[in-house]
Amino acid sequence: LPPMQSFYQGWLFISACLKQRKCKQVLASTRKLHAGAEGSKVSPSAAPERLPFCRVTEEDLAFFRKILPGRTIVDPDLVEPSNVDWLKSVRGSSEVLLRPQTTEEVSQILSYCNSRNLAVNPQGGNTGLVGGSVPVYDELILSTSLMNKILNFDSISGVLTCQAGCVLENLSFYLEERDYIMPLDLGAKGSCQIGGNVATNAGGLRLLRYGSLHGTVLGLELVLADGQVLDCLSTLRKDNTGYDLKQLFIGSEGTLGVITAVSILCPRKPKSVNVVFLGCETFEQLLKTFQLCKGMLGEILSAFEFLDSECMRLLNTHLKLPNPISDCPFYIVIETSGSDPTHDAQKLHNFLEEAMTSSLVSDGTVATEEAKIKALWSLRERVTEALTHDGFTHKYDISLPVERIYQLVTDMRKHLGNQAKSVVGYGHVGKTT
Amino acid sequence: LPPMQSFYQGWLFISACLKQRKCKQVLASTRKLHAGAEGSKVSPSAAPERLPFCRVTEEDLAFFRKILPGRTIVDPDLVEPSNVDWLKSVRGSSEVLLRPQTTEEVSQILSYCNSRNLAVNPQGGNTGLVGGSVPVYDELILSTSLMNKILNFDSISGVLTCQAGCVLENLSFYLEERDYIMPLDLGAKGSCQIGGNVATNAGGLRLLRYGSLHGTVLGLELVLADGQVLDCLSTLRKDNTGYDLKQLFIGSEGTLGVITAVSILCPRKPKSVNVVFLGCETFEQLLKTFQLCKGMLGEILSAFEFLDSECMRLLNTHLKLPNPISDCPFYIVIETSGSDPTHDAQKLHNFLEEAMTSSLVSDGTVATEEAKIKALWSLRERVTEALTHDGFTHKYDISLPVERIYQLVTDMRKHLGNQAKSVVGYGHVGKTT
Repeated sequence: LPPMQSFYQGWLFISACLKQRKCKQVLASTRKLHAGAEGSKVSPSAAPERLPFCRVTEEDLAFFRKILPGRTIVDPDLVEPSNVDWLKSVRGSSEVLLRPQTTEEVSQILSYCNSRNLAVNPQGGNTGLVGGSVPVYDELILSTSLMNKILNFDSISGVLTCQAGCVLENLSFYLEERDYIMPLDLGAKGSCQIGGNVATNAGGLRLLRYGSLHGTVLGLELVLADGQVLDCLSTLRKDNTGYDLKQLFIGSEGTLGVITAVSILCPRKPKSVNVVFLGCETFEQLLKTFQLCKGMLGEILSAFEFLDSECMRLLNTHLKLPNPISDCPFYIVIETSGSDPTHDAQKLHNFLEEAMTSSLVSDGTVATEEAKIKALWSLRERVTEALTHDGFTHKYDISLPVERIYQLVTDMRKHLGNQAKSVVGYGHVGKTT
Repeated sequence: LPPMQSFYQGWLFISACLKQRKCKQVLASTRKLHAGAEGSKVSPSAAPERLPFCRVTEEDLAFFRKILPGRTIVDPDLVEPSNVDWLKSVRGSSEVLLRPQTTEEVSQILSYCNSRNLAVNPQGGNTGLVGGSVPVYDELILSTSLMNKILNFDSISGVLTCQAGCVLENLSFYLEERDYIMPLDLGAKGSCQIGGNVATNAGGLRLLRYGSLHGTVLGLELVLADGQVLDCLSTLRKDNTGYDLKQLFIGSEGTLGVITAVSILCPRKPKSVNVVFLGCETFEQLLKTFQLCKGMLGEILSAFEFLDSECMRLLNTHLKLPNPISDCPFYIVIETSGSDPTHDAQKLHNFLEEAMTSSLVSDGTVATEEAKIKALWSLRERVTEALTHDGFTHKYDISLPVERIYQLVTDMRKHLGNQAKSVVGYGHVGKTT
């Protein structure tokens, strides 16, 4: 790839579903189940070497059971789901799953593990697609799933403070009842947790409108590796006292500490939401449509996403989701969010008229009711799911200058030839203000 | 003050212009001019102790003159403006002003000063109001004023990359010709520099709409104290590779390194801008007007600022700026920015009608042409300037839950009694999405 330049960039997920033959080779080269305490099997060369951490003893388990009664899980069947990632592409061999409920418990766990030299793998919703959420070897899994309390919501400021294990969709439901929304939205919202979102600096579908977590996260509570609790849980929109330490933890993937609580600035729920699903003949037309749409929809544009015809084929085949418009090489999902339904409808109408008459798009459909909006969104959000039904998936989540992102899919198709069942591209196009 | 809570917060500048008698006492207790190399005078107890840094020698000056020919300033008259802050409230006693033009020169200066144990005071536009921009003793002043080159602007992505010494207003002019604007705006824009804005994490008038610099600054180039250049000059909207180190430097006030270049995401220039100037009888009505305005103006609201009648009196007296509406205890400046003039005008009309009929505001005027917009904005932006004409000013820039901010002004008035000529309050009210 050429070096990154300061062009406008898009996000591209390229996924290749490999054919059976290739699939076996790939599986053979992924991490193997480690045999645990008696372990003798060597990890494949792709995995990093196991560092000289201690192995869990009965005394360790006795300690954990004391501080987490009933929440120290060692039954292999119950630990299993936490050892395997969502795409089932990597697998760890942890034998212990710890489920703390409070910051104090997390602190006790980490303090103990630090003194005992035990490796720890913090885990949120385990929805990551790059294998970062599961152990490599026999690390203890510290799950935040039971840390799911909302601590405070201020309906004047829109500042939500909650424990790290709150599921994104639950927070969304909670807020929507109060006329607010979360500043981020992801396809994995039903399982992913806010702590994991922050730890991985998730961008998602609303970044275009509400900006990155570096701007919307106002405070974090963290537990460092030695058990020390770091309270950066400010709820002020601007807090210039001292260094903004919490920023370092956003995107640090659990390597600097465990996020135990988050305070985040939530926007008002828009009074009017519209979703448009459009078809384009070429990727160039898709990009021109994006430029047009930025100009004509302006401040109400809240998402601009794309998928290609291969994605649509997989959605049809595996999830029985019908194409709502005529077949096209490229599809666009555009969302607007605004405060005046009449104004929004008019802006959208003007944009669509211009896009149609200038032949940038060849077909399209608009949704204003919630059910249809959800149906259109699912065409974009469920692509990853459709891929898992097609075979073993290799997935790359990359940022590139927007003009070049689709070229990579075309190149990959050529490169893989008939070794892959399908090579598809989809992602966020619009990520600037 | 009570502890900060998670209420919606506002920014309040309280300024008290002290009477002559008090003024002299205060001046006597501010930092004195230090006598320099032969120095024997002791700094007042308010200042921190001078640390055991070396003093500048002729050899040092010879080195600086070699790397910065003609830009190593030792003439006391020329160094003087850099020793005194804008409010003339604090004064350092530096004898050397260094004016590098390149990152390499900054690196050479810091590397040399580090090896020689010489203290350095990085300085941007020297517009800060809290005394942070000038030396305390005889620190060398490293001014970024000559580092004023725009390095790149990408008109597709809106990403601007420039040297740290670019003046904010010059960047604004440059961008406006290209149909973009800076994501921040300050009263000091004519002198303040982007590097200083980032180093102090300046919020300013557009934070309400475009968010904080933690979200809009995409990359920084920095020189550490030992001269090492740290290149975090990414121009990607989302860059999740490794820790986001640059975040630590945003708001670090030059204590971690010198910012030499900035890349920043700039929004499109709005097609329609309106400014409204309103009068309210009570601060409570002002807050209710803010709530109403957030709901009815929604995504086009770009600023909500206030000043009190004392500010207006000083603007009239010292700057001859007339009050455009009838006398009121409180005044509001509201700005909208949008993509459709008709829609924006209609939203604004509906809001004003509602605010008037519900008696939240007692008088008001609207501006749509640039000259009148500037005139209305200057009533808010020039308050600080008006204060400097009134006497010696003590100024506090604080964040508080919005419901309580004006109480502080009232309390301060009582507390100071007739020791102060005037105690005024003004600031940003709206800082959430």
